[in-house]
Amino acid sequence: MSQTVSASYDATQGADHVIDPNIDEFSPVEDVIRKAGDLRRIRSNPDYWYPVAWSHELKRGKTIGTRYAGQPVALVRPMDGTVFALEDRCAHRQVPLSLGKVSGEAVQCCYHGWAYGRSGRCIDVPYLGKGKLPNGVRTYPCREEGGLIFIFPGDPAKAESTPFPQLASVGNTEYKTRRFGERVACHYSFMHENLMDMNHQFMHMKQMGQMKPRFLGGKDEPALVEARYSFARTGGKQPWGETFIFGERRDASEKYAHKDVMTIRTEYPYQTLRIATGDEPPVMNLWIVYVPQDVEEKTCRVFGLLSIRRPKAKLVLDIAWPFLVAFTERIFKEDRDIVELEQAAWNELGGDHNQEVFPVINMLRRLLLRCGVPMNADGKTEASVP
Amino acid sequence: MSQTVSASYDATQGADHVIDPNIDEFSPVEDVIRKAGDLRRIRSNPDYWYPVAWSHELKRGKTIGTRYAGQPVALVRPMDGTVFALEDRCAHRQVPLSLGKVSGEAVQCCYHGWAYGRSGRCIDVPYLGKGKLPNGVRTYPCREEGGLIFIFPGDPAKAESTPFPQLASVGNTEYKTRRFGERVACHYSFMHENLMDMNHQFMHMKQMGQMKPRFLGGKDEPALVEARYSFARTGGKQPWGETFIFGERRDASEKYAHKDVMTIRTEYPYQTLRIATGDEPPVMNLWIVYVPQDVEEKTCRVFGLLSIRRPKAKLVLDIAWPFLVAFTERIFKEDRDIVELEQAAWNELGGDHNQEVFPVINMLRRLLLRCGVPMNADGKTEASVP
Amino acid sequence: MSQTVSASYDATQGADHVIDPNIDEFSPVEDVIRKAGDLRRIRSNPDYWYPVAWSHELKRGKTIGTRYAGQPVALVRPMDGTVFALEDRCAHRQVPLSLGKVSGEAVQCCYHGWAYGRSGRCIDVPYLGKGKLPNGVRTYPCREEGGLIFIFPGDPAKAESTPFPQLASVGNTEYKTRRFGERVACHYSFMHENLMDMNHQFMHMKQMGQMKPRFLGGKDEPALVEARYSFARTGGKQPWGETFIFGERRDASEKYAHKDVMTIRTEYPYQTLRIATGDEPPVMNLWIVYVPQDVEEKTCRVFGLLSIRRPKAKLVLDIAWPFLVAFTERIFKEDRDIVELEQAAWNELGGDHNQEVFPVINMLRRLLLRCGVPMNADGKTEASVP
Repeated sequence: MSQTVSASYDATQGADHVIDPNIDEFSPVEDVIRKAGDLRRIRSNPDYWYPVAWSHELKRGKTIGTRYAGQPVALVRPMDGTVFALEDRCAHRQVPLSLGKVSGEAVQCCYHGWAYGRSGRCIDVPYLGKGKLPNGVRTYPCREEGGLIFIFPGDPAKAESTPFPQLASVGNTEYKTRRFGERVACHYSFMHENLMDMNHQFMHMKQMGQMKPRFLGGKDEPALVEARYSFARTGGKQPWGETFIFGERRDASEKYAHKDVMTIRTEYPYQTLRIATGDEPPVMNLWIVYVPQDVEEKTCRVFGLLSIRRPKAKLVLDIAWPFLVAFTERIFKEDRDIVELEQAAWNELGGDHNQEVFPVINMLRRLLLRCGVPMNADGKTEASVP
Repeated sequence: MSQTVSASYDATQGADHVIDPNIDEFSPVEDVIRKAGDLRRIRSNPDYWYPVAWSHELKRGKTIGTRYAGQPVALVRPMDGTVFALEDRCAHRQVPLSLGKVSGEAVQCCYHGWAYGRSGRCIDVPYLGKGKLPNGVRTYPCREEGGLIFIFPGDPAKAESTPFPQLASVGNTEYKTRRFGERVACHYSFMHENLMDMNHQFMHMKQMGQMKPRFLGGKDEPALVEARYSFARTGGKQPWGETFIFGERRDASEKYAHKDVMTIRTEYPYQTLRIATGDEPPVMNLWIVYVPQDVEEKTCRVFGLLSIRRPKAKLVLDIAWPFLVAFTERIFKEDRDIVELEQAAWNELGGDHNQEVFPVINMLRRLLLRCGVPMNADGKTEASVP
Repeated sequence: MSQTVSASYDATQGADHVIDPNIDEFSPVEDVIRKAGDLRRIRSNPDYWYPVAWSHELKRGKTIGTRYAGQPVALVRPMDGTVFALEDRCAHRQVPLSLGKVSGEAVQCCYHGWAYGRSGRCIDVPYLGKGKLPNGVRTYPCREEGGLIFIFPGDPAKAESTPFPQLASVGNTEYKTRRFGERVACHYSFMHENLMDMNHQFMHMKQMGQMKPRFLGGKDEPALVEARYSFARTGGKQPWGETFIFGERRDASEKYAHKDVMTIRTEYPYQTLRIATGDEPPVMNLWIVYVPQDVEEKTCRVFGLLSIRRPKAKLVLDIAWPFLVAFTERIFKEDRDIVELEQAAWNELGGDHNQEVFPVINMLRRLLLRCGVPMNADGKTEASVP
């Protein structure tokens, strides 16, 4: 195996698992994965906090409809009080509650006016007495943090004890944060693999110039896989966006190459990417998650928080911002196109034919496999249809 | 149960079945319905007369293609004589006969020129001798009434003895009739339920203002369900369209509320809605039917005849007509959107989850269930594919 | 049976099989065909040379993606050397190689840079040592002739010994050749039947005027069916395009009718149509093939070469060319529309209901049945998914 991949483990990171790059060498985990089920048929584990909307999408006194893995969710923001989340189907005739009217702490279905409170109970049917009311709808634990509205789609009893994610450097005034995201027509696992395998810099050559990634080592823990890289420019001009963030100290001599380290981590079900020079605080800090939309989880909605450290002349970042946004959008478009082609090939072949040779990606695949939930024969988990 | 719903039966209507509003109270018929088959999987009964086109759509010497429940139907209007209806597939290569040429009393397929007469027999293949001709195509009993072309898609032997519907007040010069209709992407049963349950006035609040329906009673017979309502305005301004038809005599005091009675009836497979004051002839008289289009009957085409009684100054109605049309179209759009959402929820859930608490609607559901035809396992009745 | 169909066999053509037009008279081969499998479920036989692209679509140093029966194919034209054809899925993550970069005699996947040579072997993974490389991809025998790029999708061992088709009069300077083609949403068998049965002139009446085809005889051999026709104009004006090619010698008296003979031949899997007067070289010579695109072969891409003999004043043909093109495109559009309606009827009926009475077409159906490959229960042959 070539030197770029074999890089010995960096003990200074304090990890308790050392990656042996030879484990997977030409013995892809495909067979193991196939026995346990095709990775693209593994549902995301609902016992985590998932964002389902941006805060700014939901105005006071309004309700909007959103989705988690085929489950329709109505988010309601009363005039007073916090957001709450209900199953987005009226118990009466299953039309979306999110088309209804918010009055006080309740939402009233647009069709015949059935009303539901924060608890999901039906509290009024305008043409029935108050004594006997029909069953209500399911609720989801709901939290709002960092400009995102999260629900806990799994077992509600586990919601409180389940750790809430650290959202990049949101709230840290040393950073400016970009919120981005859109729908991507692929299983979330393709997104994790795309970001973790920095050898795909090859694809961004037009945007980034020729960058040779060097794998420095990583971690493989029960709920976490990490890879660290440095980059050496081997051709092309340094793009403007990169110069802005790092300055012009990089050159082809690789003299400085090891100083900037990119650390990519999947800490189930979230993913982060940090770039830092030596012991300094990160210059870039990304938190990202891929929330399944349909019941087969072949589409996901991306929620990303990209924090960039402000330079000393703080205004400069605000001026440069539109250019940085355009730059990251071009990169993201290339990524989206390719993962959608991966999903299309999976659809056509009816299964996963990946032939992975990079050990870190095989570790990542095993992580997603063991943390997720196998689909039933009908492509659904029991939880998915109430 | 609140007073609005429990209203005692009005004996003056002469019905032979009295609705006991307590029968269904909190014991929805869901289980009964589920055992007999999901209502949304019940096919419309073909042994009735169904309109499949407006008369004006079919010119003399022409043919057009239409549908009943997945069956393609070619309607042919010869230069002389009445319209006839054939299966819209040439016996040769199954392309639509409705793309063909009408010559005399026959229609000739556009592809190789095979010709079929009123009886469906193949009467000419241009490149074969006349002695031996191939099999022909199916025919449908066909009638043209009130600007509509009807076929009898079921057993032709039953066509003559099957009562032909009374078409609102079409032909009565005291009324002006609006013909309307369009395709709606839902099972016909959602349409019947929508119109029969006047509690959905809640949904039309923007168009109609706040109208409180009062259920007065109804009928439950083997092939008929009827509901009668009065309305009291509880808020908002009387809309212009309503003022025009009824005058301004309504007020919030409910003094006149009981005088205008709306009677909605499903007399299988048709539906009617009349509004009348006391013993006067109806001011409004609607006849409507929902004709399944696809083989799974998840789409229907609406044919509606809305007759409005002319006021003494007869011209006034003609002047007001465009406004009345626009008003009814806004109402109809709201109804179409919501029933299509009901169908979408059914598709997603894979079955009917309705939790109905209004006795009249449960009666209606049982009517549609017992008058319709269960689908085969493959979603088709034997009759549907010749 | 009428005289137009029974026409005795023309012995001067030297065929070894005589068509007895009585064989199929009113005993359609439907039952035979149904037992052997529905003709529309018969896959094209992959052990033939099929064109998959026009030469002009693939520039030097580029790669494009194309299809044969659901198999994605990357065509690669290096800066030096001939075109080669690979499976259009990278062995790594199954994304299209045709999105990659051609460098030297290799194509490099756009995602992580894996490189493949003409043999399909993976010759480089940029982040692995050269010693151990992963498996490569499938290749197809590939030839370029007459402006078309052909592949041999079946058993590669048979490629060399399989006869390569004669491409109309391409390369003969006495002719000018039009290249045409587009996707048609039907099984290839509908295309063969459409062209072979000249009784469908009825459909082109608006374009061609009334032309009465006379069947003169044909051939029925193991891999070939042929039909010969003459035409008599029975009404309408001779269209300009026809006058141009044949001159004005035709008239309604049928005096000259037998002189121009149209010979249509399916020589599996290709089809040809020639028009010749007596022993003269053909005035029109068409070679055409219908290449299945999707795995169910319900869509095909047409590749047609239409050669027209130049008149003595050679320039005249070049001047007339745009009009001839427009004329043939109008004809082809009518054909495309009708075969797509045939496929739509098949889809709706779930099978073939053709009731064929013309013996030549039944011979053609048997030919396509015995030369093709039945689909598996899942609509695929084993070869179709690697």
